[in-house]
Formats: sequence, structure tokens, C-alpha cells
Amino acid sequence: MSGLVGYVETRRAVLASTADPLVLRGGGRLDHVEVAYETYGELSPARDNVVFVCHALTGDAHAAGLHLGAKKRGWWDNMIGPGKPVDTDRFFVVSPNLLGGCSGTTGPQSIDPATGSPYCLDFPLLHMSDLVAVHRRLMAHLGVSRLYAGVGGSLGGMQILQWVIDAPEEVERAVLVAASSRLSPENIAFSAVAREAIMSDPDFHGGRYVEHGVTPRRGQKVARMMAHITYVSGQSLETKFGHRRDRIGDDWTLAPDYAVEHYLQHQGETFLDRFDALSYLYLTRLLDYFDPFADPWTHQRLADARTRFQVTSFDSDWRFDTAQSRRLAECLAECGIDVDLAELTSPHGHDSFLLEPPGYHERVAAFLA
Amino acid sequence: MSGLVGYVETRRAVLASTADPLVLRGGGRLDHVEVAYETYGELSPARDNVVFVCHALTGDAHAAGLHLGAKKRGWWDNMIGPGKPVDTDRFFVVSPNLLGGCSGTTGPQSIDPATGSPYCLDFPLLHMSDLVAVHRRLMAHLGVSRLYAGVGGSLGGMQILQWVIDAPEEVERAVLVAASSRLSPENIAFSAVAREAIMSDPDFHGGRYVEHGVTPRRGQKVARMMAHITYVSGQSLETKFGHRRDRIGDDWTLAPDYAVEHYLQHQGETFLDRFDALSYLYLTRLLDYFDPFADPWTHQRLADARTRFQVTSFDSDWRFDTAQSRRLAECLAECGIDVDLAELTSPHGHDSFLLEPPGYHERVAAFLA
Repeated sequence: MSGLVGYVETRRAVLASTADPLVLRGGGRLDHVEVAYETYGELSPARDNVVFVCHALTGDAHAAGLHLGAKKRGWWDNMIGPGKPVDTDRFFVVSPNLLGGCSGTTGPQSIDPATGSPYCLDFPLLHMSDLVAVHRRLMAHLGVSRLYAGVGGSLGGMQILQWVIDAPEEVERAVLVAASSRLSPENIAFSAVAREAIMSDPDFHGGRYVEHGVTPRRGQKVARMMAHITYVSGQSLETKFGHRRDRIGDDWTLAPDYAVEHYLQHQGETFLDRFDALSYLYLTRLLDYFDPFADPWTHQRLADARTRFQVTSFDSDWRFDTAQSRRLAECLAECGIDVDLAELTSPHGHDSFLLEPPGYHERVAAFLA
Repeated sequence: MSGLVGYVETRRAVLASTADPLVLRGGGRLDHVEVAYETYGELSPARDNVVFVCHALTGDAHAAGLHLGAKKRGWWDNMIGPGKPVDTDRFFVVSPNLLGGCSGTTGPQSIDPATGSPYCLDFPLLHMSDLVAVHRRLMAHLGVSRLYAGVGGSLGGMQILQWVIDAPEEVERAVLVAASSRLSPENIAFSAVAREAIMSDPDFHGGRYVEHGVTPRRGQKVARMMAHITYVSGQSLETKFGHRRDRIGDDWTLAPDYAVEHYLQHQGETFLDRFDALSYLYLTRLLDYFDPFADPWTHQRLADARTRFQVTSFDSDWRFDTAQSRRLAECLAECGIDVDLAELTSPHGHDSFLLEPPGYHERVAAFLA
């Protein structure tokens, strides 16, 4: 039986400084970059067993196991652990919080060394390559020069894809789940509405809401409620909630009454405590602009790539649907890269990548074996 | 060739008064109901050529032709006119604004005769039957006791369905396009987010925003931007906008840049001028609770119905998808009613019912002929 990685803790590393700034792809630089990360398993003497896990939009470094005193397992605990697909008996797993985030890694709420105040909207817009550059610095910090595999779902998968483009020799295997090589206009549209909700909240204060002792919670809640609908499937909402209501018959109200409404309220509320609105703006925008195969250098960089790709989509995922995975695979194929592409059956929509639909974990395990 | 109904004007009728109040299905009553409506074509001497048109969520009475001095044709001008499917050379067309609306018919912003102030949130929650009761009073006002046909798309179709349930002898033919006999939990979820956006706007003021000289425009804009995405298809956004942007390359911004973002901004902004937030709350909630076949009386009422039904859905409509039209048809079939059901091919999503995808107008015309 597969088990738990046990108790883990989040560590920190400083990966950029005034002497060694992170120069950003779009211009500008960050003079101080700190990264929160966790590791599971043991690094082999040959340093050749590293699996790097990238989280999705609102994830964090805590991917597996338990924090002392806390009850909640890491967000990918079903995937990572002894005997699990990302087998910690065999692999040394590295899981950082991403650049631009709000869970320990430098982001828009971090202090700008140049001013002594939080960056807020002065934080630079990030390119996927900037996130990858920080991941690569973290690997150097850990004394590792090559990944046995990079693994990620959604935005996590896109970071892995960019890593292969930026440094194909560093990634032996790439596992991309429910990812995309270019968002659809519909996808961009949903994120645009989320940003509108946050930025038009009177408590947004031009991004300097913390100074005002508030957060744009109304807008952030609406943004998350809407986004959450797009992460699940109509079918899963039907199965989970159907038309169950609190009230009976014609006793109607404008307030939440249907079970699905209470569920969305809960999703929106809990999001406020765990995520920062500015990070949400920056990371959704990073996704909108992600389009690596539009870059003329991408084909050249991938020309000699030997990375093996596994690309997986889920049939009920309408936010990052199979067409997007197929396009990704086709773009790689044009660069001469073979891709093991599969659409799996799952009723759970985009969130399937966090769950265990039939065949999914087996597929990842087989690819990593 | 089919033509224009020409210049038309919106008329008003008072259909309920203290002496003859509208008693509501859920309890309570309205002591004054005024309806805005338009008519096109001529009522036949036998009064047997009436086609009643019901509009969707944010429509109004102006379905066809032009208002003097205005350039914009009615919202269903492609469907209604001489030689068009709803042929005004042959039919007398009646098109009212619905109860609870904000375009001339009594709604939440109307004056409550009991207080002399606008109802706002004291306006009663409406049942689909209440809207139908007002339609029926309008017909009586016009001296008509029976419809040649009732025609409507989306919420419009649902009003027609309820009409047949409430008074099957009054409707000879029912044309239901992109409608539903019960919203999906996903549908309810989207409307719940829209209401959250409006009601959490600080300018909502418990619904009494007009008194405060404001409107909850931020929330209302977000609500509409989101809803608009659900009215079109991913494919239509791809075709219309693709990945076109204002800026070039890595010149990135959090502000709208992609064409699809500008489009949504425009949709959100123009909605503010033409629709009231309270009407939006009331009418979306009416839709959530619409579930006529859950009512044990419905089967009994439809037992002797002779109404012929035409039910049409569109393959790219994911807000009111074919599964919902199919369920509607099956529920009618269980009551012994034959339904001409078809799914048409159209790339335009839910909005297809307002457009002219191949076969659609021909299908409606044939049914009404």
C-alpha cells in the first residue's frame, strides 16, 4: 500500500540578491527573490532522482504530507508519497511556491528593496520563463543540474513546458496534466472578468489595499466563485448537489438557498483567507500571455530536445479541454518531439488533475517508472 | 423578400389595480400593474391570428421595426416582419415587456402604491405563472382569448411553456427555442455569482441605490461580463477575436489588451445603461426556481392539452444545452404531448436564438405556416 510522506516543513531559500539579481524576460529585475519550498524523499548520491513538482494557479509549496499540528494534507498528497506515482521511496521531490505567489515566495506583496514598501502594482508582470528561472535557481541551490522529471497540472504543467523550452537538457521527462500551450479566448475572457471584479472593488485602492487595512474581498470572492464553476463540470455539480435546497416549495429567497449556492459561497469565502488578490491578478495575466510556440526561438531551442513528454487531459475539463492538450502535442510534434498524449474519462472537470480518475495515477506512475 | 414592420411605438396598458389586483402565485399581490407592449400586423376579424412573443432575460417590448428617430431595430427584427417566419402580413404579433422587468412594465423599481416609494427588495419574488398571468391580462385587454402561437427563446420560451401549463386551451402552438424546464445546477451557479457581484457592491445599499443617487454598476458590470461569456460559445469567441491584442510582443498590461477583453468591457458597460440591477436579481432568481414538472398539478393540467410544441436547441449552446431541451420534451411526452424536437447546428452558443443559423428560421416558419 502507498503511504504518507509524514511530517514535512516548508523551507526558504534566497535565490536572488542585489549582487545577483533576477533579470526578467520582459525587462526589469528583482533584487531579492525568496522561495518557499518543500522536499520529500532523499536525493540520490548521483543526484539523478529529482522530480520537480509545479503547482497550479492558487497552490503552494505544501504538496504532500502534513505540517506539524495541522490536519490538512498537501494538495497533491494522493500523487506524492511512498509507493505513489511520484514515489518518494525512489524520488527526491522538490515542490516550490511560484514566483508572483503569496505563500512564501516573492510576489507583489513582497517588499521592494528599492523603496522599502510592498511592490503592489509596481511588481513587474511576469513571463513563464521568469518562474522557470527561479525554479532553476532553486535546483542550483540544491546542487542539482538535471531533473528526472518535471510534473505539473494546469499552470504547473505550463511551467514545466516552458522549462523544457528554456533548457531542454535539464528535463528528462515532462508530465503535463490539463495544461495548455495557449489559453483560449474564452479562458482569457473568464480571467478578465475575475480581474475586473477585483480591480473595480472600491477596497482595491490601486493595489495598495494592505496599507488601507483592507482587502478587495468582495471582488476576490466573486472572482473565485466564478472561476470555481469553470474548474468543475456541470455533471459533477449535478451529481454533488442536484437541485437540493434549504427551503421548501414556493418559499423563495434571493439569498443562497440551493446547495450549489452554499458550496460556491464557501469556496469564495475560504479563498479570501488563503490567497492574495494581487497574486491572482499577476498569475492569471501570466497565463493569458503564455504562448511559447508564437516565439520564433522556441522551435530552435527544442530542435535538439530529448525530453520525453506525457500529456494528459480529461474529457469533462472544459476550462483546459483536450483540444488545448492536442494543440500542445501538435506544436511539440512540429519540433520533432514525441508526445504520449491521452484523454482520460473523468466526471470532475479541470479539477480532475487533483483527483484520482481511473487510469490517471497508473498512467503517471508508468511514465515515471 | 422579407421586409420591415416599419415604425412602431411602445404602448402602455394598466392591467391591475386596487379593485382588481394581481394575486401572485407565491402569495401577496400587486395593486398596480402596468405593461409596456408593442404590436405588429393586424388583428384578424376572427381574432385568431395572434402570435405572442416573450422576450428573454434582458429583452424588452421592442422586438421588431424601428422607433421614430432611433436607428436600432427591435431585438428580434430578423424573425418578425412581412414575409419573415413570424409573418406580420398574416399574424398580429404582441410583444410585451415582462413583469419584474425595467423597460416599462411593473418591476422592483416601480412605486409601491402602499408606500408611495419604489418597492426595491420589498417587491415580491415572482413565479413564472405571475408573468403569464400578466400576459393573459394583456390578451384580455386586447380582446383576444386564444393564441395562434406563443413564441419565445430562453426565458421567453419558459414563459410560453408555463402559459400552456396554466391555460393549455389558450395556446394552439408553442415555439420554444433554447429553453429549459429546469435550470442545471451549473446554470444556477452562474446566476448566483452574478447576484453576489451585484448585492455585494457597496453601492447596492440594500437595493435602495436609486435613493442614494447611485447604481451598483461595478457589480452589475461584472455580472453581465460573466453572463455574456455563457451566452456565446468558445468557438465564436475564437472566430471573432482569436488572440488579437492592442499591444505587441512582451508589452504586457493588467488592463484590457486582448480584443475579447475589450468586447466584454463593452458588453458590461452598455448593459449598465439599459438594465436595472434589481430586475436582474428578480428575473435570474425566477429562472432558478422554474421547475414546472416538479409541480404535481402540471401533469393534470396538461392531460387534455392539444397544444403543439416545437422545441429547438443549438449544438454550441452550453448555457441551455440540448440536454435541457430534451428533458423538456420528455416531460411533455410523459403528459401525452407530442413535441417536434430538433438540435440545430450553430456556432453562436445560446445567442443563436437571436441569430439566423441555417435551418432555424425555416423551421419556425414551417411550424407556424
